[in-house]
Amino acid sequence: MLYFDPAEGWSREEIEQAQVARLRATIAQARKAPIYCNRFDEMGITPDSIQSVDDVRKLPVTTKDDLRAQYPDKMNTVPRKDIVRMHASSGTTGSPTVIHYTQSDLDSWSDLVARCLHMVGVRPEHVFQNMTGYGLFTGGLGLHYGAERLGCLTMPSGPGNTKRQFMLMKDFNTYAAHIIPSYALYLGAALRDMGMAPEELPLGIVVTGAEPHTEEARQRIEKLLGVKAYNSYGLSEMNGPGVAFECTEQHGMHIWEDAFLPEIVDPVTLEPVADGEIGELIMTTLCRTGMPIIRYRTRDLTRFITDECPCGRQHRRIDRILGRADDMLIIKGVNIYPMQVERVLMEFSEVGENYVIELERENFIDQLRVKVEIKEEHFVEDMRVLQGLQRKIASRLCSEILITPRVEIVQHNSLPKSEGKAQRVVDKRE
Amino acid sequence: MLYFDPAEGWSREEIEQAQVARLRATIAQARKAPIYCNRFDEMGITPDSIQSVDDVRKLPVTTKDDLRAQYPDKMNTVPRKDIVRMHASSGTTGSPTVIHYTQSDLDSWSDLVARCLHMVGVRPEHVFQNMTGYGLFTGGLGLHYGAERLGCLTMPSGPGNTKRQFMLMKDFNTYAAHIIPSYALYLGAALRDMGMAPEELPLGIVVTGAEPHTEEARQRIEKLLGVKAYNSYGLSEMNGPGVAFECTEQHGMHIWEDAFLPEIVDPVTLEPVADGEIGELIMTTLCRTGMPIIRYRTRDLTRFITDECPCGRQHRRIDRILGRADDMLIIKGVNIYPMQVERVLMEFSEVGENYVIELERENFIDQLRVKVEIKEEHFVEDMRVLQGLQRKIASRLCSEILITPRVEIVQHNSLPKSEGKAQRVVDKRE
Ligand SMILES: [Zn+2]
Ligand SMILES: [Zn+2]
Repeated sequence: MLYFDPAEGWSREEIEQAQVARLRATIAQARKAPIYCNRFDEMGITPDSIQSVDDVRKLPVTTKDDLRAQYPDKMNTVPRKDIVRMHASSGTTGSPTVIHYTQSDLDSWSDLVARCLHMVGVRPEHVFQNMTGYGLFTGGLGLHYGAERLGCLTMPSGPGNTKRQFMLMKDFNTYAAHIIPSYALYLGAALRDMGMAPEELPLGIVVTGAEPHTEEARQRIEKLLGVKAYNSYGLSEMNGPGVAFECTEQHGMHIWEDAFLPEIVDPVTLEPVADGEIGELIMTTLCRTGMPIIRYRTRDLTRFITDECPCGRQHRRIDRILGRADDMLIIKGVNIYPMQVERVLMEFSEVGENYVIELERENFIDQLRVKVEIKEEHFVEDMRVLQGLQRKIASRLCSEILITPRVEIVQHNSLPKSEGKAQRVVDKRE
Repeated sequence: MLYFDPAEGWSREEIEQAQVARLRATIAQARKAPIYCNRFDEMGITPDSIQSVDDVRKLPVTTKDDLRAQYPDKMNTVPRKDIVRMHASSGTTGSPTVIHYTQSDLDSWSDLVARCLHMVGVRPEHVFQNMTGYGLFTGGLGLHYGAERLGCLTMPSGPGNTKRQFMLMKDFNTYAAHIIPSYALYLGAALRDMGMAPEELPLGIVVTGAEPHTEEARQRIEKLLGVKAYNSYGLSEMNGPGVAFECTEQHGMHIWEDAFLPEIVDPVTLEPVADGEIGELIMTTLCRTGMPIIRYRTRDLTRFITDECPCGRQHRRIDRILGRADDMLIIKGVNIYPMQVERVLMEFSEVGENYVIELERENFIDQLRVKVEIKEEHFVEDMRVLQGLQRKIASRLCSEILITPRVEIVQHNSLPKSEGKAQRVVDKRE
């Protein structure tokens, strides 16, 4: 069979028809939670408010703080006896965010995850090694149920114990594995250190999720482990994994639009950004019964990839997560994301890994300065060469962020270093 | 409904009829694995060899070493594509023991666990907090699937993070939890140390398994946490948890005899022991499709409890696990288990916790000597009082183990102590 689920092959028209019908049903269901009942009544919203997909913009957004305020189960829309699972985010501050699932929610979640795995070539005859933690984190049980639903031999090996992971892979001929990117890199290095070639592993596919990671990290994982690595996107508010997943083109993740209604908006105005522009991903559940969520602000930055996917699927693709909405800077009225600057800098082979974005206000006008270290081996004394490089970088940045920054190339090891998360942005404006 | 599954209420006749039919089907299925095909052919066994439940004794036993030799999947009786799960024992030495499950095996396993929870009063409207590790260990996913199958709100909180466990319990009104006994004791002590009364927890039922523990430990858990604690018995070779479980009588664990055929035998001769006598538990799977196991030697010591259970269920009960078959001593031709001696000693309030069992051979005759410390506060100088106590202990031991030992009461702190597992038996015979 070509698709695990026929919905995978729907045309845009079929997708949007289903979205409208399901969004109307979701509004009716969500009303059973006081938070939505109140907000809908205030705004005069009924299922009939939705006549087209764009009408989703009439609906109120839901934030993580809303979820926290409804802790532990005030957003449930079914009786307690119909809830069979809960997951929770760890919640570094305040109450955790809790998601409740009915049996039908678990079934459709498992189907979505199975669909993702099937899309990249995992089949019932394969062994699937689930190398992530289980528990309240949705990644473990989410992939576990999905792989089992697909019919794989599902091995709940959990994280850690690298030697045993390799032993299990070899002895059970593991074809597909779920690994968080940092552990995948660690495993790859361990394999190399043990003097083993990637070809000695039966592994063909690795699913990576839970941590944002770069294209370079993916390529490194693929090379070290001798696999195809596919990027998985999910968040517990939208079930967990199984929201968006790369197809074999490895160019953007298809969001399953029969189950979720995605929007990408300006994080400040909440207006939709132009197609292909970066913004905050907002999603509405279309099939959830126990705890529907309307227009959830993920705070994740991404963009729609606008061309047709050669795989033929019409579910739109999002780019890998480019940062958090909280990172956004507004400079001369333009939204800029540090990740955009980083991406441009990394295109230049002369440029090292350390850089700083400085914002100042001079005569009431915002100024953007980008300081970047040059690699040791590229250091040149000829000022003209340096200035040429500065101009080239400034011009590429301008085409990306629509603002011309002052670019300053500095010596290797001259910018402040930090052991933890680097402070990339220094905002000196009041 | 009285029973989660009608099989729970079967009469002995119904149970045994099902056992015969299912054992015959199991033999037919097991033949598909070379190990059983060969053994059955050598012994001339076919499904028709089974005409009554006792005919199970015609079948060959299966040991842990057999399972290891069939690693990783040589005992499977269905094609790889039909296997959807594996679990493995950690395997301190040699290959791990691996169990493979079909979807139907997972379904019947979940049904058995749900039946256990239902039997002690857990219901779909309850919250079930699963505080054990997940992964290759069967306890985590086994109870998880069972609670979800029953329809509980199943919270995969995993082990550890005691403060969060209490917070989740309170906020979600957790009624039932699955905890390993040592962690249950730790939780109870933590509650007390936090100055909280057990009544402040909503917890009503605790399921304890995975570690053998005493009746005293159970009572302590019940008191510290303000719950009823129910003993659960299982082993991955027989799925995992859900093999035997206490009913609300808390007097022995009902083995689900529609799914397993239990025997209790002399670990040396493999002959059945008399009803109510201690021996090694042997079990045969009756419903497994992916990897049936014939007469598995669990090495666990227990006995059948022979009186009728007031709860009315006709599935036989086993006592809590009394030790390992490897601990058995043969003295004057009689099988003796150190746990039997310990139980008798602990009946005497004067007796401390440290004791040693010594075996000697004098003039070709085995001699059993039991040295036991007296509690500090019970020490008496009057030899006659001491001798009286020694006689009383010897006489109780004789009635339990059918051999009269020499009992020696020694001073508090005079026997060798060990930081780890105490060495209780010193065998000085050649
Ligand atoms: Zn595609
Ligand atoms: Zn009973």
